[in-house]
Amino acid sequence: MEEMVNRKIVLINRPDGMPKLSDFRLEEVKVEEPEAGHVVVATDVLSIDAFIRTTLETRAYHGVVPIGTPIVALGVGHVLHSTVPEFQPGDEVFGPLCAQTVTTLPSVALRKLDTSKFPATAYLGALGMTTGLTAYFGITEVGAVKPGDTVVVSGAAGAVGSLAGQIARISGATNLIGIAGGPEKVAFLVNELGFTAAIDYKNENVEARLAELAPDGIDVFFDNVGGSTLDAVLMHIKEFSRVVICGGISHYEDMDNVVGPKNYLKLAERHARMEGFAVTHFGARFPEAEAALTGWLQDGQLIVHEQYEHGIERFPEALLTLLTGGNRGKMLLDLR
Amino acid sequence: MEEMVNRKIVLINRPDGMPKLSDFRLEEVKVEEPEAGHVVVATDVLSIDAFIRTTLETRAYHGVVPIGTPIVALGVGHVLHSTVPEFQPGDEVFGPLCAQTVTTLPSVALRKLDTSKFPATAYLGALGMTTGLTAYFGITEVGAVKPGDTVVVSGAAGAVGSLAGQIARISGATNLIGIAGGPEKVAFLVNELGFTAAIDYKNENVEARLAELAPDGIDVFFDNVGGSTLDAVLMHIKEFSRVVICGGISHYEDMDNVVGPKNYLKLAERHARMEGFAVTHFGARFPEAEAALTGWLQDGQLIVHEQYEHGIERFPEALLTLLTGGNRGKMLLDLR
Repeated sequence: MEEMVNRKIVLINRPDGMPKLSDFRLEEVKVEEPEAGHVVVATDVLSIDAFIRTTLETRAYHGVVPIGTPIVALGVGHVLHSTVPEFQPGDEVFGPLCAQTVTTLPSVALRKLDTSKFPATAYLGALGMTTGLTAYFGITEVGAVKPGDTVVVSGAAGAVGSLAGQIARISGATNLIGIAGGPEKVAFLVNELGFTAAIDYKNENVEARLAELAPDGIDVFFDNVGGSTLDAVLMHIKEFSRVVICGGISHYEDMDNVVGPKNYLKLAERHARMEGFAVTHFGARFPEAEAALTGWLQDGQLIVHEQYEHGIERFPEALLTLLTGGNRGKMLLDLR
Repeated sequence: MEEMVNRKIVLINRPDGMPKLSDFRLEEVKVEEPEAGHVVVATDVLSIDAFIRTTLETRAYHGVVPIGTPIVALGVGHVLHSTVPEFQPGDEVFGPLCAQTVTTLPSVALRKLDTSKFPATAYLGALGMTTGLTAYFGITEVGAVKPGDTVVVSGAAGAVGSLAGQIARISGATNLIGIAGGPEKVAFLVNELGFTAAIDYKNENVEARLAELAPDGIDVFFDNVGGSTLDAVLMHIKEFSRVVICGGISHYEDMDNVVGPKNYLKLAERHARMEGFAVTHFGARFPEAEAALTGWLQDGQLIVHEQYEHGIERFPEALLTLLTGGNRGKMLLDLR
């Protein structure tokens, strides 16, 4: 194998609260000859996901990033060198490539991509496990959205939220309300993604606006945020409603001091449920979800907005953009 | 109709925090001749339930008791005078008799009781809507307890909790853990009701004890308490587990400052759900539940413990005993 350098972003300090740029460092190392069964991949695009924040904690449930090792991230890339016949140089692949330009992985950790219909980045967004598949199962199975439902999505301009909202609309939701930060995101949700209305939580009273926009109550809430947003929605849930706990980005900065939903007793009052889920548990049904998502992408019902940062050295900035709500749609880091 | 006096306990002051005896007053009034369609009932036994506390608030979801009117309560009694042929003097009845010795109600609010197999008080406990039926549907439907499950019940020595635990055992739970306050209740749960083990929350670390008693995690939690108890259990729920929100007695004293479950994100991590319910929504299935409960009572699988106060003037004391956890099993007020 020819000599190569891997440029990687490693964690040098566990963040206390919001991560700082100084918690990360760019390092360069020579790429070693791969062991048998391994494949060397050049990263093309990394997916910048909220779960990455949780891996910086010592008790993260998505695994913990050791100090001095590259930050965990999913990505797409192309094979540079392979020790197994299933992968050949040039093949486009998806896998846990992490925050680095070159990754050496066991071949079983990689999935070969069919990029004849969609670019590889579709597998990080609309067809990605942490994004499109999470939105799909969260809305159709856990939330069980039915035609005529009033559905609320928080973090609605984010990667998962923007897909969840659109899948709710496709599933028949007739009153689709997004919650997001800032007038640009509100306009994006209503004008580009087909939301019925959107609430700017930075400038509006969420609970008062929910009372106006959903006077008959809420059937399904898809929550990426937690905190006061979750409490505001709980005040307006209908009987037999479903609250889908997809994430709690408002808590990730300070997991030692999570404030739980004080209005959770509304679940008892309204005969409602609050349910979390791990998308991996729907693994057997991924083909069904991928077929549905592919169809909606092809016929234009599902719109994916991508926002890019460029260069591995900008990985920390891209993560901070995501964590501070600076993105619309899917946040990606382009290393090409 | 002969002249009669009704002795009633009315609310004279909305409690701030735990109710005080001075929030209530005994009043005596002459019983008026009933309007057409109404029935006059002498109260025999009143059911002292935690929901009564919530009706003393202005925003209670079980209805609000106006200042100066009798406290809401369910009870059994016998007909003194009737204007309708369906009810005759002497008939034993169940209904919202409220905290008073004589009640005049529309006949549709009353249910005639069959006391050939069980005493009338069974309809306030094991066969009562707020007790036995609530425990039955909470365990079998919302919690969906299956054979082999590890089940935890909080408020386990209370009326609903003690039945919920026993119904879980009958439904096949093999590890049945009660949480209650004090060594007497712990002994009652294990020695008399067949719980596998019980935790004394007043003298033990609930989370540490759960780790010991349920090392493989918890399948179903039937919660009457909320607060730190709910948080302790959430740390130990299994994947696909069910948390049944039956009540939140730890919050009722101060509904303005409910502390939500800070560990609610475990629902997402463990693909678990938290669900509340209103027993009235299972109305169509009450006969099925009553048949099952009747069978278990008759064959001795279900044990009901009753604790009595005596005399209408003791209604406030009986309520405070319940709210401070002073009862084992079903709290009743005997007016006979």
